[in-house]
Amino acid sequence: MRRALQLAGNGPAEGVNPRVGCVILSPAGEVLAEGWHRGAGTCHAEVDALAQLDADAARGATAVVTLEPCNHTGRTGPCALALIEAGVGNVVYAVADPGPHSSGGAARLRAAGIDVAGGLLADEVEAFLADWLISARLGRPFVTVKWASSLDGRAAAADGSSRWITGPAARQDVHERRARADAILVGTGTALADDPSLTARAADGALLPHQPRPVVVGCRPVPADAAVRRHPLTPWFIPGHDVAALLRELHERGIRRVFVEGGPTVASAFVRAGLVDEYLIYLAPTLLGGDKLALGDIGVAGIDGQLRLRISELQYLGEDILLVARPAGADETSPIDQTDQTTRATPAETS
Amino acid sequence: MRRALQLAGNGPAEGVNPRVGCVILSPAGEVLAEGWHRGAGTCHAEVDALAQLDADAARGATAVVTLEPCNHTGRTGPCALALIEAGVGNVVYAVADPGPHSSGGAARLRAAGIDVAGGLLADEVEAFLADWLISARLGRPFVTVKWASSLDGRAAAADGSSRWITGPAARQDVHERRARADAILVGTGTALADDPSLTARAADGALLPHQPRPVVVGCRPVPADAAVRRHPLTPWFIPGHDVAALLRELHERGIRRVFVEGGPTVASAFVRAGLVDEYLIYLAPTLLGGDKLALGDIGVAGIDGQLRLRISELQYLGEDILLVARPAGADETSPIDQTDQTTRATPAETS
Ligand SMILES: NC(=O)c1ccc[n+]([C@@H]2O[C@H](COP(=O)([O-])OP(=O)(O)OC[C@H]3O[C@@H](n4cnc5c(N)ncnc54)[C@H](OP(=O)(O)O)[C@@H]3O)[C@@H](O)[C@H]2O)c1
Ligand SMILES: NC(=O)c1ccc[n+]([C@@H]2O[C@H](COP(=O)([O-])OP(=O)(O)OC[C@H]3O[C@@H](n4cnc5c(N)ncnc54)[C@H](OP(=O)(O)O)[C@@H]3O)[C@@H](O)[C@H]2O)c1
Repeated sequence: MRRALQLAGNGPAEGVNPRVGCVILSPAGEVLAEGWHRGAGTCHAEVDALAQLDADAARGATAVVTLEPCNHTGRTGPCALALIEAGVGNVVYAVADPGPHSSGGAARLRAAGIDVAGGLLADEVEAFLADWLISARLGRPFVTVKWASSLDGRAAAADGSSRWITGPAARQDVHERRARADAILVGTGTALADDPSLTARAADGALLPHQPRPVVVGCRPVPADAAVRRHPLTPWFIPGHDVAALLRELHERGIRRVFVEGGPTVASAFVRAGLVDEYLIYLAPTLLGGDKLALGDIGVAGIDGQLRLRISELQYLGEDILLVARPAGADETSPIDQTDQTTRATPAETS
Repeated sequence: MRRALQLAGNGPAEGVNPRVGCVILSPAGEVLAEGWHRGAGTCHAEVDALAQLDADAARGATAVVTLEPCNHTGRTGPCALALIEAGVGNVVYAVADPGPHSSGGAARLRAAGIDVAGGLLADEVEAFLADWLISARLGRPFVTVKWASSLDGRAAAADGSSRWITGPAARQDVHERRARADAILVGTGTALADDPSLTARAADGALLPHQPRPVVVGCRPVPADAAVRRHPLTPWFIPGHDVAALLRELHERGIRRVFVEGGPTVASAFVRAGLVDEYLIYLAPTLLGGDKLALGDIGVAGIDGQLRLRISELQYLGEDILLVARPAGADETSPIDQTDQTTRATPAETS
């Protein structure tokens, strides 16, 4: 399975399909063939591996695959069927396929008399496929929200000026992360105020090989000469303020990873709706004061309703600090328990 | 000198006197005696060292001392005179004495025909004496401003509740740092809202050996049954909103290190006045939104006026992050150069 996961890593990170790897083992345990999914429109990992074998060579073999074999006839036939037809005797997979159209492969294999076991190395494969799995399970893209602020939480000075809060290393990091997303999203406020190009660029300004689709949300029109209209991918202008509907629409259009770059109004809307999977907070060693906050109203009334995060990464980028965080999940102490503990203590932050 | 600095560290960190160490060397370079300042009312380091020698034993010797020998007759006589009377031939010191009443020791020694050299290991001794030197040079206490906030810069939720933003490890760290200050200061807003005791406590609630003087600033009266009135040291209630005048008064009353614990109004007043030497920012992995900001108006209009800091410490305390920072000093790229560089780049934070 570890080898299959390694093979999965050969696939492309962008796009609508999961990265899957597969190893076919003989009954004696020798590797007969290896395969991986090379991107939309190409064979799935199982078929990619089987294709390398003569008919009958996989008879009685074991297929080790990172994701439950699909049961879906799309651009390629269902992998479950391909395995049945090849006559494999055992299938071992890590993570179940959450897709509404593609799941059920394990059941179909079992019905054909094949021995099937799921869950091997599941945690590692879950982590590897985190964004694709969230997207498949929830029917919406994996949402990263990024902001850059001063240590006192301001995204701009009182007069609106914000060039630059963070330094070159932090800004370059943002470009590299843009390049890993399928779409980059801003509100009309940012589009009109900053006229961003929303491209992913190298330090020298050259375009990076993969560009995210630029998306501008909001009702106001964006001028004909806006920089975003010169993006290598045609920008999508999506009116309306319903972020859940927006994410469904992006998902239908094939977006699996969206990078929300603000501004504060749009970022707050995603946070308020509970639709953020990952936070990238770039903190510059500076104080600004004033009313230009990086985050506005996020619907928290009292301390019991606070949005706890779990920090997964903390690093310096030049003089700036990058925090990568996720919503504190159900595997944490539950919020109710935390409240119980704290009300037993003394009464306020300064005591 | 390195040994003298080590000896200086034996002295008490609190109080109005600097921690000074002294080594007396024979002309051949052997250590004849060592001394350090043990706190107000005791001998200065030079006298402490000389006291261990017979009369005449220091004749022609070299005195190595971390701070320029004083020229001030206070509770002890001037150290310069003691060195002259002992007949030492050379004096080497690290940092000049900035005190208005105590400086001039080097000149007095030279006038007596003694060879005097200053500046040895000056950077290390400067760092060691930073708070005392700031206090002596500026005639005001060294000011630490602390706040605890969410990652979006809020000190409380929208309804004012703030128990607890940070966890037990961060709160304990605050208590230990309170114990290192001569005074702990809050505004009447915090005194009335939170009724803090302003004591420095161990994790089990017991009082730590050294307690800072509690100081409440502002015009509103604090109730007769307020917790701060049960502090082991009688609290000082200081009316008025002029922070510079406040610091002068505290300095006159013997305070050398003041720990400003808020709230936001008072903290912002110190920041706005440029009277902060050290920032302690406790960041909890949580988001709150709303209008209860840790810092309010600090007098920054545009990005060119931002208050740049230099982070000297970054550590986890439980799940929280502590940032220790100082105002970015004159040894940094000047703000004007930075502006020049950045206006050459693309126009805004999101571009
Ligand atoms: N420091 C940073 O990281 C950073 C990042 C980006 C921007 N900024 C700064 O932020 C400023 C712009 O702030 P902003 O808040 O106006 O920008 P914004 O969030 O990009 O745009 C807000 C606008 O988007 C539309 N919108 C789309 N979805 C919405 C929703 N769910 N709820 C409400 N409105 C929605 C609305 O405009 P319509 O009326 O058109 O619908 C709204 O006025 C700029 O000065 C920029 O420099 C800073
Ligand atoms: N998260 C944290 O780290 C933290 C720390 C402390 C407090 N807090 C929270 O902060 C809230 C209290 O906020 P706050 O801003 O009212 O507290 P504050 O800063 O402690 O008190 C403000 C008051 O102090 C007086 N004052 C003294 N010097 C002043 C000056 N230079 N400028 C203006 N006013 C001055 C004024 O009252 P007069 O009218 O009486 O003169 C003013 O209203 C509480 O809810 C508390 O829980 C949070």
